Amino acid sequence: MDKYAIGIDLGGTNIKAALVHSEKGIIEKASTPTNADQGLEHVLTQLATIAKRVSKDFEPEKILGIGIGAPGVISLDRTTVSHPPNLPGWEEVHVAKELEERTGWHTRVENDANLAALGSSRFGAGKNFDHFIMVTLGTGVGGGIIYNRDLFRGATGGAAELGHVSIDYNGAKSNSPAIGGIEAYLGQRFLSTHAWDVISDNRDNELYSMFSDNPEKLDPLALFEAAEKGNRLAIDILAEAGEKLGVAITNYIHILDIRKIIVSGGVAKAGKYILETAHCTALERLLPPMRTDFEIIYEDLGNDAALLGAASLGMETALDS
Amino acid sequence: MDKYAIGIDLGGTNIKAALVHSEKGIIEKASTPTNADQGLEHVLTQLATIAKRVSKDFEPEKILGIGIGAPGVISLDRTTVSHPPNLPGWEEVHVAKELEERTGWHTRVENDANLAALGSSRFGAGKNFDHFIMVTLGTGVGGGIIYNRDLFRGATGGAAELGHVSIDYNGAKSNSPAIGGIEAYLGQRFLSTHAWDVISDNRDNELYSMFSDNPEKLDPLALFEAAEKGNRLAIDILAEAGEKLGVAITNYIHILDIRKIIVSGGVAKAGKYILETAHCTALERLLPPMRTDFEIIYEDLGNDAALLGAASLGMETALDS
Repeated sequence: MDKYAIGIDLGGTNIKAALVHSEKGIIEKASTPTNADQGLEHVLTQLATIAKRVSKDFEPEKILGIGIGAPGVISLDRTTVSHPPNLPGWEEVHVAKELEERTGWHTRVENDANLAALGSSRFGAGKNFDHFIMVTLGTGVGGGIIYNRDLFRGATGGAAELGHVSIDYNGAKSNSPAIGGIEAYLGQRFLSTHAWDVISDNRDNELYSMFSDNPEKLDPLALFEAAEKGNRLAIDILAEAGEKLGVAITNYIHILDIRKIIVSGGVAKAGKYILETAHCTALERLLPPMRTDFEIIYEDLGNDAALLGAASLGMETALDS
Repeated sequence: MDKYAIGIDLGGTNIKAALVHSEKGIIEKASTPTNADQGLEHVLTQLATIAKRVSKDFEPEKILGIGIGAPGVISLDRTTVSHPPNLPGWEEVHVAKELEERTGWHTRVENDANLAALGSSRFGAGKNFDHFIMVTLGTGVGGGIIYNRDLFRGATGGAAELGHVSIDYNGAKSNSPAIGGIEAYLGQRFLSTHAWDVISDNRDNELYSMFSDNPEKLDPLALFEAAEKGNRLAIDILAEAGEKLGVAITNYIHILDIRKIIVSGGVAKAGKYILETAHCTALERLLPPMRTDFEIIYEDLGNDAALLGAASLGMETALDS
């Protein structure tokens, strides 16, 4: 049967939306600036408008519902967002009710990293697995846990804060209270800053002259490209990050006994130099029975994963309710 | 309704058994040496015999089933034990079938740490919570995760290897491949060895003269008693262990969003000196939304937790089947 839903990604800068078909995936896409500074009412109107715009060629009754990926703390019933970072003026907002009033469509919200995992489960690399852990390596490090083909959400819906899992209680600090959290090593900015520190100590390395005017441009992709050309320092920096990721993955697996790790995000583009070391490190450190079937898989849906997951949430919760 | 089942704890040294009533708890108890060196057949006969012995005053049809706590890797369907440590000669043993043939009662097996969590959930401190993490601080550090009042078992039944969660990728080594795993700091032997190292460097401390003839007797309870008398070194050693436990607990919570931590086992008897520091450390390191409702609770069922959990497993799987 043809099933349609709308997925929305509510970011601090842009709102993205997609009309999604349960089998075919994304059919139509749209994007609009969030303009969060214009206040809550404006953003809610934007959300309703983009939902209608992206589905304008369809009869409204054909759409099962809306799923919204949002930052911040989401209520266990997936209706309310509290204190989202990057959305000033939002305290506790009943996004589901607000959107249902404005559009007539059933609406639910969920953490954006969880939705990327759900999108992978329904449309991406995760389709093949009943259980997997998605690790999103972007500006921050986030994640989602799929258990029995559904999100594992914990007691209040806040599970899978994977970037805040510490691998060194005395280690690097980020803006997280979890000292030595993996985000403090693999988050894009932290990785780039650390890389530049290392390169600044090795001024004869060609990366030094390449980036000394714009060290902020030394992103994981630049390190990957240098590594591809055989730059030893770049290879070592990425391998060191991969080793730390491997320790974090070992921790996830020892707690969850879920051995398929799906990675996505900008830092994952540094590909094999990080992921192969992560794989080797985890294999060394896992309890022997946990090594069977352990695998790290790259998700190439990119940003679409969260949109597909959001639409899946809208679709599935509408059918359940 | 009166429901009865038999719980068995299959250890390398002793087999313990209990007849358990669903409301009243343990009604009858028995124990017998395992004599694992006499081979598989002997141990299986011992298991069947003790099950009959502990329930001899009851009509067999009143007993719903047997639950067995065993070391080693348990199959997902809870029938088979593979390569249990301390039971030489056991490869892959279909314990459920063997016991069902010998006793006529439905039988299931489960990891002993998981059963302690189940016992706490049905009869102990865990009764009050839908979700909790049980951390067993004994010779080793183990655990079980209760989610929606049932065991969270992961993809293959091996979840909650909590002792092998690393808090320092470059840290202490134990017999686990997970370097810096919390067991390497909190496992009874490791904690005692470390304590003796510290005390040996402080020979004016009264603990040095008290234990220099028998340093192996410096167990967590001895440290607790010294701490109670104001021994600063003992207090510091236990607080340092508590800090590390707090980091591990932070990792568990960031992955699972389950904020009730129930602790048991011999090392937990060092009580407040470890647990209060663990609580403070975790509170500092948890993401702010995760601090709400976070609690560490002591389980005083002791070894009965695993027997009660084993019987609960036998009862509940019999009713499900």
